[in-house]
Amino acid sequence: MTTSSNSSNPSQAQTSGMWGGRFSEATDAFVAEFTASVQFDQRFYKQDIAGSIAHATMLAKVGVLTEQERDDIINGLNTIQTEIEAGQFEWRIDLEDVHMNIESRLTQRIGITGKKLHTGRSRNDQVATDIRLYVRDEIDAILELLKKLQKGILSIAAQNTHTIMPGFTHLQTAQPVTFGHHLLAWFEMLVRDSERLIDCRKRTNRMPLGSAALAGTTYPIDRAFTAELLGFEAVSENSLDAVSDRDFGIEFNAAASLIMMHLSRMSEELILWTSAQFKFVNIPDRFCTGSSIMPQKKNPDVPELVRGKTGRVYGDLMSLLTLMKGQPLAYNKDNQEDKEPLFDAIDTVRGSLMAFADMIPALVPNIDIMREAALRGFSTATDLADYLVKNGVAFRDAHEIVGKAVALGVQESKDLSELTLEQLQQFSDLIQADVFEKALTLEASVNARNHIGGTAPAQVEAAIERAHARLEKLYAQ
Amino acid sequence: MTTSSNSSNPSQAQTSGMWGGRFSEATDAFVAEFTASVQFDQRFYKQDIAGSIAHATMLAKVGVLTEQERDDIINGLNTIQTEIEAGQFEWRIDLEDVHMNIESRLTQRIGITGKKLHTGRSRNDQVATDIRLYVRDEIDAILELLKKLQKGILSIAAQNTHTIMPGFTHLQTAQPVTFGHHLLAWFEMLVRDSERLIDCRKRTNRMPLGSAALAGTTYPIDRAFTAELLGFEAVSENSLDAVSDRDFGIEFNAAASLIMMHLSRMSEELILWTSAQFKFVNIPDRFCTGSSIMPQKKNPDVPELVRGKTGRVYGDLMSLLTLMKGQPLAYNKDNQEDKEPLFDAIDTVRGSLMAFADMIPALVPNIDIMREAALRGFSTATDLADYLVKNGVAFRDAHEIVGKAVALGVQESKDLSELTLEQLQQFSDLIQADVFEKALTLEASVNARNHIGGTAPAQVEAAIERAHARLEKLYAQ
Amino acid sequence: MTTSSNSSNPSQAQTSGMWGGRFSEATDAFVAEFTASVQFDQRFYKQDIAGSIAHATMLAKVGVLTEQERDDIINGLNTIQTEIEAGQFEWRIDLEDVHMNIESRLTQRIGITGKKLHTGRSRNDQVATDIRLYVRDEIDAILELLKKLQKGILSIAAQNTHTIMPGFTHLQTAQPVTFGHHLLAWFEMLVRDSERLIDCRKRTNRMPLGSAALAGTTYPIDRAFTAELLGFEAVSENSLDAVSDRDFGIEFNAAASLIMMHLSRMSEELILWTSAQFKFVNIPDRFCTGSSIMPQKKNPDVPELVRGKTGRVYGDLMSLLTLMKGQPLAYNKDNQEDKEPLFDAIDTVRGSLMAFADMIPALVPNIDIMREAALRGFSTATDLADYLVKNGVAFRDAHEIVGKAVALGVQESKDLSELTLEQLQQFSDLIQADVFEKALTLEASVNARNHIGGTAPAQVEAAIERAHARLEKLYAQ
Amino acid sequence: MTTSSNSSNPSQAQTSGMWGGRFSEATDAFVAEFTASVQFDQRFYKQDIAGSIAHATMLAKVGVLTEQERDDIINGLNTIQTEIEAGQFEWRIDLEDVHMNIESRLTQRIGITGKKLHTGRSRNDQVATDIRLYVRDEIDAILELLKKLQKGILSIAAQNTHTIMPGFTHLQTAQPVTFGHHLLAWFEMLVRDSERLIDCRKRTNRMPLGSAALAGTTYPIDRAFTAELLGFEAVSENSLDAVSDRDFGIEFNAAASLIMMHLSRMSEELILWTSAQFKFVNIPDRFCTGSSIMPQKKNPDVPELVRGKTGRVYGDLMSLLTLMKGQPLAYNKDNQEDKEPLFDAIDTVRGSLMAFADMIPALVPNIDIMREAALRGFSTATDLADYLVKNGVAFRDAHEIVGKAVALGVQESKDLSELTLEQLQQFSDLIQADVFEKALTLEASVNARNHIGGTAPAQVEAAIERAHARLEKLYAQ
Repeated sequence: MTTSSNSSNPSQAQTSGMWGGRFSEATDAFVAEFTASVQFDQRFYKQDIAGSIAHATMLAKVGVLTEQERDDIINGLNTIQTEIEAGQFEWRIDLEDVHMNIESRLTQRIGITGKKLHTGRSRNDQVATDIRLYVRDEIDAILELLKKLQKGILSIAAQNTHTIMPGFTHLQTAQPVTFGHHLLAWFEMLVRDSERLIDCRKRTNRMPLGSAALAGTTYPIDRAFTAELLGFEAVSENSLDAVSDRDFGIEFNAAASLIMMHLSRMSEELILWTSAQFKFVNIPDRFCTGSSIMPQKKNPDVPELVRGKTGRVYGDLMSLLTLMKGQPLAYNKDNQEDKEPLFDAIDTVRGSLMAFADMIPALVPNIDIMREAALRGFSTATDLADYLVKNGVAFRDAHEIVGKAVALGVQESKDLSELTLEQLQQFSDLIQADVFEKALTLEASVNARNHIGGTAPAQVEAAIERAHARLEKLYAQ
Repeated sequence: MTTSSNSSNPSQAQTSGMWGGRFSEATDAFVAEFTASVQFDQRFYKQDIAGSIAHATMLAKVGVLTEQERDDIINGLNTIQTEIEAGQFEWRIDLEDVHMNIESRLTQRIGITGKKLHTGRSRNDQVATDIRLYVRDEIDAILELLKKLQKGILSIAAQNTHTIMPGFTHLQTAQPVTFGHHLLAWFEMLVRDSERLIDCRKRTNRMPLGSAALAGTTYPIDRAFTAELLGFEAVSENSLDAVSDRDFGIEFNAAASLIMMHLSRMSEELILWTSAQFKFVNIPDRFCTGSSIMPQKKNPDVPELVRGKTGRVYGDLMSLLTLMKGQPLAYNKDNQEDKEPLFDAIDTVRGSLMAFADMIPALVPNIDIMREAALRGFSTATDLADYLVKNGVAFRDAHEIVGKAVALGVQESKDLSELTLEQLQQFSDLIQADVFEKALTLEASVNARNHIGGTAPAQVEAAIERAHARLEKLYAQ
Repeated sequence: MTTSSNSSNPSQAQTSGMWGGRFSEATDAFVAEFTASVQFDQRFYKQDIAGSIAHATMLAKVGVLTEQERDDIINGLNTIQTEIEAGQFEWRIDLEDVHMNIESRLTQRIGITGKKLHTGRSRNDQVATDIRLYVRDEIDAILELLKKLQKGILSIAAQNTHTIMPGFTHLQTAQPVTFGHHLLAWFEMLVRDSERLIDCRKRTNRMPLGSAALAGTTYPIDRAFTAELLGFEAVSENSLDAVSDRDFGIEFNAAASLIMMHLSRMSEELILWTSAQFKFVNIPDRFCTGSSIMPQKKNPDVPELVRGKTGRVYGDLMSLLTLMKGQPLAYNKDNQEDKEPLFDAIDTVRGSLMAFADMIPALVPNIDIMREAALRGFSTATDLADYLVKNGVAFRDAHEIVGKAVALGVQESKDLSELTLEQLQQFSDLIQADVFEKALTLEASVNARNHIGGTAPAQVEAAIERAHARLEKLYAQ
Repeated sequence: MTTSSNSSNPSQAQTSGMWGGRFSEATDAFVAEFTASVQFDQRFYKQDIAGSIAHATMLAKVGVLTEQERDDIINGLNTIQTEIEAGQFEWRIDLEDVHMNIESRLTQRIGITGKKLHTGRSRNDQVATDIRLYVRDEIDAILELLKKLQKGILSIAAQNTHTIMPGFTHLQTAQPVTFGHHLLAWFEMLVRDSERLIDCRKRTNRMPLGSAALAGTTYPIDRAFTAELLGFEAVSENSLDAVSDRDFGIEFNAAASLIMMHLSRMSEELILWTSAQFKFVNIPDRFCTGSSIMPQKKNPDVPELVRGKTGRVYGDLMSLLTLMKGQPLAYNKDNQEDKEPLFDAIDTVRGSLMAFADMIPALVPNIDIMREAALRGFSTATDLADYLVKNGVAFRDAHEIVGKAVALGVQESKDLSELTLEQLQQFSDLIQADVFEKALTLEASVNARNHIGGTAPAQVEAAIERAHARLEKLYAQ
């Protein structure tokens, strides 16, 4: 695809040389380009053509077009689509937008019948229809990527239901958890993202076509028929609203912002985990770069970049919200600015998910280092307190006993599980030999959190099984 | 409710006077207040108490508490709720948050049993539970206000199915529409808002309780039972995710931003319509103020203020998105900052909807002025072109004919419907006497847009009927 | 300029076909493109080359390069710039960024000496230098456009120092003002924008070069000399800060947001003023479009579009703020995402100012309609009250008297100035014949506000004179 | 200070009981409160009184008030200020705002003269003046806090000019730096913040008073005199602009956002550094909290909270930008919403800076752990390459040699400086005994980066000295 005009050299400005350098004409060329949208709305040529074919089919059904006219239009449009996809279509700035470019070419090809296509519609409802079809298709593509990433997480989680690492709160060692359990936290975030997109899709998939410029049309259109042809779930209920509504774009960008926020959290953890200080995980080389200066470097480029791209999508959301603030009904030219923030959010989310869907299942945990880190920091202190409570000590007293044991551990540079039974019993004679297996070892700690949502390996395995079923149900909608 | 400490005079700082002015101690007082949340989280004392009662009931069911302990706790908590609601509860900064304030008071009242309440939970899952209960309740209150406003719009729309006004695109006169039809565009916006809140409610209404600090608990809790007591639809699937997830708050603020955006658009129109230049509508005096200087002024304060408040809610959304960006698992202190942007959005949306729900049905349209405005500006030019097309003229020719007729109208200072049949026929002999009733009058124009979503009075009446049924179904969910 | 690779068809992916379809290799191609920046950072090739020439010159001065090496490098770089500007340079995704593309081509041309150019620097300080040079140049271009627009406003204001229109508060008629005075309010907004950009320029124009990767370099560089060659006002004081600081980009985008906010306010007024209801102003046709359907339409496209573009720049600001939140020192890959939001803000501001700088001086006020609007709505009521106060009436009583006079005017459908002296005197015998010339006429009203900042024609003329002097001083900085 | 009315129990609503429960009256009470601002604008009572005293002084100078009237007003206002500060002033919602509350009380105290105070001004210019005075005062307070923090950083940096730690890029070990150098990077960020606030202060410190409602006043006011009394640097040049301009608030919130962004970066590093994995730094206990459950925990609450508060200020900025978008001139009620986002940003920045100004100089670096971390990760690899280049090896070859040496180090689990000279010489005989002191030791590495901005201890010491001088100059403005 080529665009025949650009800022530095618009065709009109060339022409204006012949008109004696009249300033206003050169201005015209700039204004023409400044207000045109074909540079970016050509992106949904496919949806525009599909919408036109459905519209022509409906017009023939209700008798506004003959069957011959309908067929000429459909054939013409199909040929144009082929031209576009072969890169042979000349996009013209002076024809303003994707709609006029295609319609103009259609008339060039099939003559006066081409002009009849626009009967009973306006660019206001046409663009609203195109963009909804486009967003609907993109939502489907993003759901596919989310599913791939979700399954990738489940696969690596399944390999790590017994891999123990320190769980953090405030980035301080808190309690041991399994790596599989941690990964399932990521899974949960992303499942909510899918749910939100599915909800957003419902509201996107309503057809504005038939609203015409703002008030509807005087032709005997059959909107339900067109909607069925295009796979819309419903027709919009009010023409003024339909041509000016961009809620679905804002809702999409809000859902996209949440996706990026989740990816930024995963990224932050990957960046921490690959630092020399953590070393919990290796990211395969193909997602990293080295340094031409420092031979020892291996930088986690993909997570860093995705973390950075989060701001971009937040900005896209803010753009659309600001755009729509205070706009009176119905269509205003402001709305032309709805596209680029939406496209940018779509591209960013797709690229980021694509990279993550490849990268996540390829992560390599350093199991020994994770375990070693969990052993440090008295991560089972809570378990010892719980052990005492279950043996009849009041929690307040238990807390004090454990505090003293921790102090001894600090002094001896040993974790609680490395103290001897005798050492432990000096703080409470309720502590018995079973304390190691029931409370102090990492395995004891994680196994004890054995309820739905807990970190026990058995729970993580069950959660993974449920997760597969949930995905099946979610994407069957 | 009173807060016993504030920045200028914290109790610790008073004490620090006695310690000889040691800087670090005065700092302690500042830091204590800086990091406390009770100043704002006391707002959900009711949800905190309800959550604790359910938790205690569950602990008794699984045998961690005795029935007597459970009853003591429940009675104690009920008494505390009464104290709070009577304004007799002393909130203490040094107890940090709503949870510790209530628990501390409980122990003060019922002794050591009070401390057992916290068995098997942590403040991390407790606050996540409280805030979800709170948001769920607020969503329900907002849905009530939305319903009231939606019904108010339907009532005034029903009175104006035949009131004609100019429809605008680009704030230029485009085609005549009915005032009822315009109002229904507002209705459609707000129905989407309700749908979004209902979707958000599903994801809010999941119970994190049982996730404890981050990894679950070693006590034999029955999460499904607690969830049922509290009206949750499901329990969270992963403890790490559950204590750190604030998606529901962001999703709520995004939905709130869309509500405010819609109200800002309605506000903009009301401000335009009450200007001396439009005069389409009167807003009752009680929603306006005058000027102590300029006796002729009547300012549309409520719509202006609501338009202004839009930015506030957008800002609240951005706050939460920024808050969560790049946070590693699990709970971090950052999350304490989730509350104020959420509360502010809730308060702003509630206040704005309350004002609009009163104001909108009380609007008084200036029917004659609206009609007069619709008559100006050749708003039926499109209809004349459509008339010619239906009589066999190609649209391109029809457009040219109408252009000439408009030029004559401009010259004679007459609208198209004010030209004589003879004048019109000089542009095309296909124009017959039926042109006035079929195309040129305002009534002809609006009546002709007679399909679902169109502005014809018959369609508007049908749309109102459907709207009532849709509301019924929507709020039955 | 062409980019040799794009998403749908990356060269590496083609190659990967030959490698037997190994998935990870195809992934490599995607990751390579996902993490590359040459697609957008080629935009500052000119600054990159200028920076390299200065760096080589400095290296020769301190003896790290020979004079011959320096000359070879400079000649090589100049040739490459010519290639780029002739569109003959092949940008390669696999070389990641603008720096590597140019350096690689340099080595291709001049051999091993090309590799010496990178001595004592790193891409971290190189990109930070390039982008500052680029933003500095763009600030200068934007200041030129602002100046053009400011002068355009002064020229049309000078023609309208006596043109009277209604001044609005709350979009309600308040008091008469002159159109020239109103235009000067726009001027003031834009002068603050220039001031802010000039302040931002100071902080942009500091040189990071010499910070190398993060810690400085071991070569005996002369940073002050390089800074002088490149026109920087100072060198950065700390290498860690210098490679990671993007404040100047955020500050620029904040200044750009304020510019767009101001243009959005001017746009809103232009859209109102060109509506059928106001008709205060005509915008020349070349800034508007008509409708292919509705022959009577003339839409104010440029102001609408600029109002819409405001959100875009707000979003760009939010992107950068989010990007930098919580980033540890020093350079992180996230920072690669600084460019597009900055470029987008620059392009949007430049395009919008260009359009406004042409459009504003071409506006045509409808002087009679403005005056007529000012006559309606009792806009001189305040003046009558002031007249009475100056004749000894307490303001509270004066307000009551005027209120009654306004009531009579409403009843008689006459403005205050259209009432007879007798009619007015029935409310107060202090009202004399001079009331018309001193208070009630529009001219009396505006002339009386005769102090700095007031709307009196004499003040507006003086303000315009001062404005020219202020501009002179401002841009001499 | 107490507010006499609140949502649940407004005085008007009580009254409405006596009116027979008419719904619209109860609504009145809600609307009155919804549109009032005294709940939050009472915050600048001091500026309001100062502005009124200056205005009265000026009115007496130009003869509009007598000297007696002026003195009565001034005495009355001073008494009211005392009442307010003693908490004895009753703020009334039905008097809408701080201005009307104070004026009403003044008239109550001194009779009819109180009403003369409002001569020649309007609430529109009054509130704009108050808020500018308020922001100016807050900027000064924030500059004091910034200075305190900057000096605190310099003091701890001065103690650590020779403390070596790993410098990071991409959170990977890159090259050794000194801790003092790292701290100076923080200093540089904050110095830019001060510069921006000083620039913002200039634009804040311009006086709108005299603009009256929108067009100026008919009284012979002396604006320059009032400005001098209030310490304003200039008077606003245009009345329409002056009553509607809120640029200074947006500019302040943008500067505040940058401050918070910087604090979020420092916070992120402190959170990393206090983790069990890094352990670079201890934060004194008084800035941390423990856990009532996990006895081993010490959470870095202050940095976490400040990192979280960043989003809040970003949101405040977005609120104001959205607020002003598309507002027509002159004052609109929307502008009442300017205060809370500004106040919230001010409070957040002040609290955060206060906490940091105390905390930063109290940080305790773990010097041995930092050094140990710098020794790991081949952080001097670049130095070895530079050493070879200086001995005549081409950089490309040097890079390869170092790569091999690193490989040996990895194999032997030794850092480069721990290899023997013989081991090193097997890769290049240009490596001599001086390689350790000149390149491989941490000291050699940092000492070699000895230019302005570099990490060499000598440079850091010089930078600290310059920094003190820069602060002196900066705050002398």
